[in-house]
Amino acid sequence: MADDATRVFHDTARAVRTSPEKMQKVNLFESPRMFCDVYALLPGQAQKAHAHAGSDKIYHVLAGTATVRIGEVTHALGPGELAVAPAGVEHGVSNEGELPTSLLVVMAPHPSFGPPSPPEKA
Amino acid sequence: MADDATRVFHDTARAVRTSPEKMQKVNLFESPRMFCDVYALLPGQAQKAHAHAGSDKIYHVLAGTATVRIGEVTHALGPGELAVAPAGVEHGVSNEGELPTSLLVVMAPHPSFGPPSPPEKA
Repeated sequence: MADDATRVFHDTARAVRTSPEKMQKVNLFESPRMFCDVYALLPGQAQKAHAHAGSDKIYHVLAGTATVRIGEVTHALGPGELAVAPAGVEHGVSNEGELPTSLLVVMAPHPSFGPPSPPEKA
Repeated sequence: MADDATRVFHDTARAVRTSPEKMQKVNLFESPRMFCDVYALLPGQAQKAHAHAGSDKIYHVLAGTATVRIGEVTHALGPGELAVAPAGVEHGVSNEGELPTSLLVVMAPHPSFGPPSPPEKA
């Protein structure tokens, strides 16, 4: 595969990396506009509930089951299912199953490239 | 499923809608920051190559095969594989297989919510 191809074409299954220590994230692409990661959670692992004031996030299940909380609603999702956490809404994910879980995760805009929109004041 | 859940949780397989006329798009979520669609292409259908000056796009194959062009590189992708079209790079997709193809497509920012960045002039 040419250099160009390796930067823009990815096999999500090959990007899965697990660790008994904690949930793993592998980045496939990032720009100020978005990031696209593959998350891998072994049974019992989780990403604690949190929120991003200015970014939307999508969790798309690739394998296993993901128990996803969006706001006050928690739902168990399987492969092909996805959850959207709009900006400002608390969200988290855990693997309460018996097999490894992998997720395609897209967030926009990328939260680490400076303020994406006018700052929100309380 | 509660109202909240139907807006934030989706089964991509149930969002697939095909038409013999042309490629179909079903929106799952949109905001000024991104849109998330499911595209369905019957054999022979395509999205012609085009570019978005200020938005990145991800094509993630859910089922079937997708022949994706990113810039000058064309690659046939199967389920679980994805392609990234960074802002400004020409991209397109076609179904050159014999089965229906479905894709999860995320673009950020949403190109229809006003100029996301200073307009580019030729």
